[in-house]
Amino acid sequence: MRLLIGNSTDIDLVGEFEKAGAAWWAQRLVWFAREGDVLVLPALPEDDYVDYVTGVLGVDRSSLRLLVPPPGADGAARLTADRLADPSFLADLDAALAGRTVEQVLATWPAAPVVALARRIGAADLLPGQAFVSQGGGALVNSKAVFRAVAAGAGVPIPQGAVCANPAAAEQEIWDLLAEDRAVIIKHEFYSGGVGNHILSRGEGVQPLGAPRVSIMPDRPAVAKFIAAEWDRYTSGGRHRLVVEEYFPGSRAVFSELLITDGGIQFGTDGEMFYVPIANAQAIPAPDQPADRMAAVTEHARRLCEPLRAMGYRGWLSADAIVTPGGAVYFTEYNGRITGSTHLHEVLGRRVVGPDFARDRVLFERVGWRAPSFREAVDAVEAAGLAYDPATRTGALFCSAYDPDAGSVWYCAVAPDMDAIRVLEERLASLFPQQPS
Amino acid sequence: MRLLIGNSTDIDLVGEFEKAGAAWWAQRLVWFAREGDVLVLPALPEDDYVDYVTGVLGVDRSSLRLLVPPPGADGAARLTADRLADPSFLADLDAALAGRTVEQVLATWPAAPVVALARRIGAADLLPGQAFVSQGGGALVNSKAVFRAVAAGAGVPIPQGAVCANPAAAEQEIWDLLAEDRAVIIKHEFYSGGVGNHILSRGEGVQPLGAPRVSIMPDRPAVAKFIAAEWDRYTSGGRHRLVVEEYFPGSRAVFSELLITDGGIQFGTDGEMFYVPIANAQAIPAPDQPADRMAAVTEHARRLCEPLRAMGYRGWLSADAIVTPGGAVYFTEYNGRITGSTHLHEVLGRRVVGPDFARDRVLFERVGWRAPSFREAVDAVEAAGLAYDPATRTGALFCSAYDPDAGSVWYCAVAPDMDAIRVLEERLASLFPQQPS
Repeated sequence: MRLLIGNSTDIDLVGEFEKAGAAWWAQRLVWFAREGDVLVLPALPEDDYVDYVTGVLGVDRSSLRLLVPPPGADGAARLTADRLADPSFLADLDAALAGRTVEQVLATWPAAPVVALARRIGAADLLPGQAFVSQGGGALVNSKAVFRAVAAGAGVPIPQGAVCANPAAAEQEIWDLLAEDRAVIIKHEFYSGGVGNHILSRGEGVQPLGAPRVSIMPDRPAVAKFIAAEWDRYTSGGRHRLVVEEYFPGSRAVFSELLITDGGIQFGTDGEMFYVPIANAQAIPAPDQPADRMAAVTEHARRLCEPLRAMGYRGWLSADAIVTPGGAVYFTEYNGRITGSTHLHEVLGRRVVGPDFARDRVLFERVGWRAPSFREAVDAVEAAGLAYDPATRTGALFCSAYDPDAGSVWYCAVAPDMDAIRVLEERLASLFPQQPS
Repeated sequence: MRLLIGNSTDIDLVGEFEKAGAAWWAQRLVWFAREGDVLVLPALPEDDYVDYVTGVLGVDRSSLRLLVPPPGADGAARLTADRLADPSFLADLDAALAGRTVEQVLATWPAAPVVALARRIGAADLLPGQAFVSQGGGALVNSKAVFRAVAAGAGVPIPQGAVCANPAAAEQEIWDLLAEDRAVIIKHEFYSGGVGNHILSRGEGVQPLGAPRVSIMPDRPAVAKFIAAEWDRYTSGGRHRLVVEEYFPGSRAVFSELLITDGGIQFGTDGEMFYVPIANAQAIPAPDQPADRMAAVTEHARRLCEPLRAMGYRGWLSADAIVTPGGAVYFTEYNGRITGSTHLHEVLGRRVVGPDFARDRVLFERVGWRAPSFREAVDAVEAAGLAYDPATRTGALFCSAYDPDAGSVWYCAVAPDMDAIRVLEERLASLFPQQPS
């Protein structure tokens, strides 16, 4: 059996960011379950969700053990260091593991407290990359600042820009770009999903994709004023560095996700992200990009993995790139963790749809499909004949737990091509009232 | 000709730390000068010093151009970004370079503003590793926190410990070690020379080597109180991470310095540092260590260089290790820059004493030899017949400029072995009244 840990981005890197949804988001961990696994989660998932996932996977639900440590100093949203070291949790874990052999430890985020837990149960060696992670390596493979240095050093193309450790450097770099009438995107070093980004432009007309907002900066004093006002917000009060880079309006966002192991670097998938204005859908594999372009993206992603592998990181790495309207490719960040794509290609793709899913199927994840409850969502999709069918290898799967705050669930539509995905999405949208996007 | 830049540790990493001596310390750059070079320094060196160094090197003093940019927002102590972009300095630099071919750009610290300068004069490609450095890579190869992750990941032995991003983690790690009656050293992520370190011990009797002070921590509340009081100081107000690791009393400090190039990794030297209680002398090569031990240290140092080379760093890397009284070797930091040893082995060693200097000579640098002035120091040593003599390949060289604040200069004694070094040091100590060390 395996020990699966649904932890979140290190709290020291993101503070309160995305804390509200963290416990819900961690529940995608259930997709990784295999017979007999022990799962550690920040909160108990809904039975309907666990039954659904195990049903799709053909895993005996009763063979799983789900453990939730008591709340810690930060509450119950995330699996923080104190929760993973809580004595009553450790006792429960010992009981769950008694007489059984742990074959692997898998954590959604490469955090030192997970290594400490693995060491406590004598399983550190079963957590790949544990030495690197034990000394804070997780921050290095999830930092947009470290990314820019490593990518530049490895010869991977990145947008012009800089990693700024003080407001004056940021003002200078932003103005250098704006003065040439180029748009700019600034990024918090550790926030994800585009939420910590902000676009700056000399003039009107830039549509925000990959950041919630665009601000107009007519002149350098406007930049200075903006930076003075926003520096603390985008650097967590000076704890982190600010990434400044050229923004290319109208670009598309693609990625290649690879697995770094002791033995080498394995291709997982490529894909495309869709932002309106922040991430709201993804397609796996990238459906509309020329094959040679995605091959080039993956080749660069592989080069990006080499230094991380030499540093001792083991695990998934998603390399994100933009394709500009002119067809140029620039890499914009990497994510060294189990990303929001990993369960899609490795489980829903390879395991459910089939090992060669990418040859004749597209997986299309839609964020935030509104429904009254998980159960009603499943029932409605089944009643409409839209549920995923192993015989046709098409239909909708629910790839997230139900998010009661948003009143929505995320689905993954499976179909032979994007035209068929669009038909399926229209039919799904008709089942419950959806908000206009 | 070459452009040499005597910049200091990035101000964003160290703030006011060592600012007072920065302009003086930068002047060791003159040792790297070759015929026709242009040197950029934070302050003009004393003529006596430049004449002395060029005299030893056999470089035509009048062929050199020394440029000092006007003071910047931080004053005149360091070559900050604003000084390296000052228009009057850039005009002077253009004039100095007019009609000449820059063959190399060499900077003492791998900082982004140096890359910006190299780009301005069309010489970015002549600065090895410029892409990595332009995106803040210098911080990664000089961080004691990143070091621990990379060393652990590369399988290089490090003391037990952790990289702590919050006070609770630091308290836990410190107490875990103290509770086992092991001593602890905490380290600022970016300070150097042992000055940002502090030793913690359960009981009395630990001699501080490698840190200015020892504090006694009888119990966990004492640790909590200490961390609460000192967290801001040792993390620059939370900007950086705190390194906590086991401290081994009575250890010796050795290092191996290698050059990372496009072509590979070249051995520079090994050596030993002496701390009473912070760095006050070094010997090159390590004079008293068994050869197989230093070979093992260099082998580990080489493994440490591999990931940095893959990341795109080019330049010198010193890997520092301790040898415990029991003979165990643990690595404690790396320094990716022109260190305080580089001019000793590459210039005073290879160039002055001879390419194979390490075969039959020891270079012994003594910090802070008191003398009334550089000129009087040189005269006194010559009069006493102790000046370095190329015929015998023994004697004293002055390896630093005169430090008027400390009233001292640093010398490098050259002799066949440590016994001869000690004799030479005694005679040197008799020339001017020295403070007891």
